Amino acid sequence: MQPGARLDPQWSKRRAEKQRRLGLIKDLADGLVLRPESIVQALERVIGPGDRVVLEGNNQKQADFLSRSLAQVDPARVSNLHLVMPSVSRAEHLDLFERGIARKLDFAFAGAQSLRISQFLEDGLLEVGAIHTYIELYARLYVDLIPNVVLVAGYTADRQGNLYTGPSTEDTPMLVEAAAFHDGIVIAQVNEIVDDPKDLPRVDIPGSWIDLIVQADRPFFIEPLFTRDPRLITPMQVLMAMMAIRGVYERHNVQSLNHGIGFNTAAIELLLPTYGEKLGLKGKICRNWTLNPHPTLIPAIESGWVESVHCFGSELGMEDYVAARPDIFFTGHDGSMRSNRGMCQLAGQYAVDLFIGSTLQMDGLGNSSTVTRGRLAGFGGAPNMGHDPRGRRHPTPAWLDLIETDDPLSRGRKLVVQVVETFQAGGRPCIVESLDAVDVGRKSGMPLAPIMIYGDDVTHVLTEEGIAYLYKARSVDERKAMIAAVSGVTPVGMTQDRKRTETLRKEGLIAMPEDLGVNRQEATRSLLAAKNVADLVSWSGDLYKPPAKFRSW
Amino acid sequence: MQPGARLDPQWSKRRAEKQRRLGLIKDLADGLVLRPESIVQALERVIGPGDRVVLEGNNQKQADFLSRSLAQVDPARVSNLHLVMPSVSRAEHLDLFERGIARKLDFAFAGAQSLRISQFLEDGLLEVGAIHTYIELYARLYVDLIPNVVLVAGYTADRQGNLYTGPSTEDTPMLVEAAAFHDGIVIAQVNEIVDDPKDLPRVDIPGSWIDLIVQADRPFFIEPLFTRDPRLITPMQVLMAMMAIRGVYERHNVQSLNHGIGFNTAAIELLLPTYGEKLGLKGKICRNWTLNPHPTLIPAIESGWVESVHCFGSELGMEDYVAARPDIFFTGHDGSMRSNRGMCQLAGQYAVDLFIGSTLQMDGLGNSSTVTRGRLAGFGGAPNMGHDPRGRRHPTPAWLDLIETDDPLSRGRKLVVQVVETFQAGGRPCIVESLDAVDVGRKSGMPLAPIMIYGDDVTHVLTEEGIAYLYKARSVDERKAMIAAVSGVTPVGMTQDRKRTETLRKEGLIAMPEDLGVNRQEATRSLLAAKNVADLVSWSGDLYKPPAKFRSW
Repeated sequence: MQPGARLDPQWSKRRAEKQRRLGLIKDLADGLVLRPESIVQALERVIGPGDRVVLEGNNQKQADFLSRSLAQVDPARVSNLHLVMPSVSRAEHLDLFERGIARKLDFAFAGAQSLRISQFLEDGLLEVGAIHTYIELYARLYVDLIPNVVLVAGYTADRQGNLYTGPSTEDTPMLVEAAAFHDGIVIAQVNEIVDDPKDLPRVDIPGSWIDLIVQADRPFFIEPLFTRDPRLITPMQVLMAMMAIRGVYERHNVQSLNHGIGFNTAAIELLLPTYGEKLGLKGKICRNWTLNPHPTLIPAIESGWVESVHCFGSELGMEDYVAARPDIFFTGHDGSMRSNRGMCQLAGQYAVDLFIGSTLQMDGLGNSSTVTRGRLAGFGGAPNMGHDPRGRRHPTPAWLDLIETDDPLSRGRKLVVQVVETFQAGGRPCIVESLDAVDVGRKSGMPLAPIMIYGDDVTHVLTEEGIAYLYKARSVDERKAMIAAVSGVTPVGMTQDRKRTETLRKEGLIAMPEDLGVNRQEATRSLLAAKNVADLVSWSGDLYKPPAKFRSW
Repeated sequence: MQPGARLDPQWSKRRAEKQRRLGLIKDLADGLVLRPESIVQALERVIGPGDRVVLEGNNQKQADFLSRSLAQVDPARVSNLHLVMPSVSRAEHLDLFERGIARKLDFAFAGAQSLRISQFLEDGLLEVGAIHTYIELYARLYVDLIPNVVLVAGYTADRQGNLYTGPSTEDTPMLVEAAAFHDGIVIAQVNEIVDDPKDLPRVDIPGSWIDLIVQADRPFFIEPLFTRDPRLITPMQVLMAMMAIRGVYERHNVQSLNHGIGFNTAAIELLLPTYGEKLGLKGKICRNWTLNPHPTLIPAIESGWVESVHCFGSELGMEDYVAARPDIFFTGHDGSMRSNRGMCQLAGQYAVDLFIGSTLQMDGLGNSSTVTRGRLAGFGGAPNMGHDPRGRRHPTPAWLDLIETDDPLSRGRKLVVQVVETFQAGGRPCIVESLDAVDVGRKSGMPLAPIMIYGDDVTHVLTEEGIAYLYKARSVDERKAMIAAVSGVTPVGMTQDRKRTETLRKEGLIAMPEDLGVNRQEATRSLLAAKNVADLVSWSGDLYKPPAKFRSW
């Protein structure tokens, strides 16, 4: 095939269609640069009815100029779209369905919009293809969800389309590649367009992968999702953090890990420089992280606990701190962070010893879900990191430590730790006999219940009562007894047989704080390396610039 | 942090060291362009003793100018390197250890060099960190194997370092990103350097990610690993392919899939346009593929069976054919393929219904390995695709079809099919009582035996005797009986109890060709859509240009 040779039209329909559509908007653009005021018209011309469209609703950053514009197209021209979105997070994402512009949705996470998705589903306005993990959704873009159009966001572009994503690179490269290399159309909104390529801080995505750029009416929306104010950490969470450090991290020699969002894991982060230091664990545990740049990790970094952090996305306010710590974080030659949700999810799946996450609801077998009545919240990244990746072949001390036999064909196991306080603030039990998700799945006509993390993937359950070492369970019945033994006075906890609990404890299948050498008296907020956001700012040498809502001084 | 603000030296050691080293070779380069004749000197200056160095030994393409040059450095200057290599495939890769330049090796696959690795390990010349799957190895580059230097290969670069990888993009983006965004040094060898960026066919990796480019003394080495000559497909393989199509693909409604290398899967590819067509399966099965561009897939593509193929790498001779079928393959705007092993492995893990691969040795529980006495061959991508990804949440008909209970908390399962002929050509049984790998693991001091695919991940075993539907096994004992029942007269097969085999067959746990409606008489080579390489060329409309060694006319 010589370059320029004519392609057989029968085998190049996508390419011809792309060229046809791009031809339709020549009058709305100057080269690659779309006129912002023509964006709605342009979308009406480059998107066809029934198209599969990837819209960068992301965990943090949002292609919101494009989503708001898409919501304004004429449904007589653009309708029945099949939307593929990592995160459904903005009101207009659902407006698209209300207006008939979109019809089918494949997604990974829905935060604030989870209630409305449920309602729309019930009202027949929306059809869910499937709920995914992030990385699973990206994977399908290369197999059976190949997109026609991809709409993404970046900080800056030059007129050749070279794109600087800013510190929140996040999902953009994964989404763009699927279209750029299969004759899809890629449109990027940016905060700023520069004339001289040299004025780009760096190139995250080459210009030849992008078909059109448009300057947004305002900078893309981004939310500080991963900031937890240490003021709100309770003494009970301090106790649980002490148990995690002694009973899991120290015990299994956990060197690489991922922390979920939540006050429980924030407490662990803030205990490393105090409690962890006292135990002599610095340099021995928690060295390599896959993590958003949590402000609560600052004290551990500043005390020399952390060797590296690879990030899924960025966190508002952490930009300068990250830029000032290039030995720890992944940054470009311009100094700003390069996050990458795809690579970080991969790392969190295959390359770390431990995943630990909090959950709101867990059943007596250790299954958990964030899907509760009336809400389709989705999975995000948790199931991807919260399972044992059975394609893994490299050993680490922690991974090997979970082997319970001497069979040469045995293999190690990733630590999947579920942290759960037995009761929610309102007095509702978090450990329940049956997950709401089972009901939701049935009522929504899903083929399976939307389980976030399956009990048989969980190796440890940690409550304020103690730790259940589930990977040691020799039967389903024993697993249930172990969970019941640390479930306090919840309905599940009430089923425990006190005598059996004592036996489980003696056999080391469960452990109470005392068994771990954790002194309950020590579990006070004074153990936290930072007690409020101002302390975090101070630890950072004023490099951390918390968003206004976290400033209480 | 303002751009240009001075970084605290305590937190920017990697950046300072990178700048220092790049400063040392200014006299050997013109901007980013290293003088080829100074390459050995340059490597001696930018690589330090004990560095972690990623060397692009790839499944197909090889950064061989760089590896040959690295083998020439003075061990007094550069020694004890920790090499991280997807594939160890060239003699000089091992010379590095013989000369003391390298000491430790983390890798995923070793083909021709597997024997020498074993010998070096025994002689104490080489220390193995771990054997990985490809994707697991990339993941560690972002966690605990962060590289100091990355050496890769591309087709063309401009003087700003913008890189066109050619159709074999393969591992390059995954390897480069880890260094480019953590102050590592990236050196790319290319076949050609162009002055005008417009003369680059396309940009696969932005110039700002690359520190140095060098024109290689000759084009990088690339091998046609995935070409199977239909002449060598046996009638037995035709029979097995018929059984796979009826007993697995049709039965479970397999729509997306990966095929391993081998004559068994080549036979399946060549039976789709004949046997599959006759069964009325076109459009119903085998639509979306994650696969290298196997020439034996050409007849199925030309007959309209295939909707899409995303590729790990390229295949020599397939360039023009791929470029002429952009609706099927992922290609750039320049027309040539963009492969991506990282994305394709991810897709093969998370987004397909089925993995099917041949193995040379399997035990009575379904465990298999390519590691045999004296050879450390590594895993490549098979374990990544040959397991049930438990982080998957989206359902497909095939995935759901493997559920055996009505528990709402059950989940579907990926089909992992092991194809094995009971005996090798030389009369040695392929189904054995104990894998050689168990012995090799013990003797090499590995913490675990190097198993390629674990039996408990295998859902189907297919031999010339029949299919064992292992996912239906209700106990380990039953699983063993099912495997024995299709193991013919191998030692494992001889353990079968004929009466039990009959029961297994009646219960549908195993199936013989007759049970599947497969007529043994039909199993002849005349069913193959192409009987030799010339037929493949003809199917392709002369677009496929087979390498000389496959031309027999």
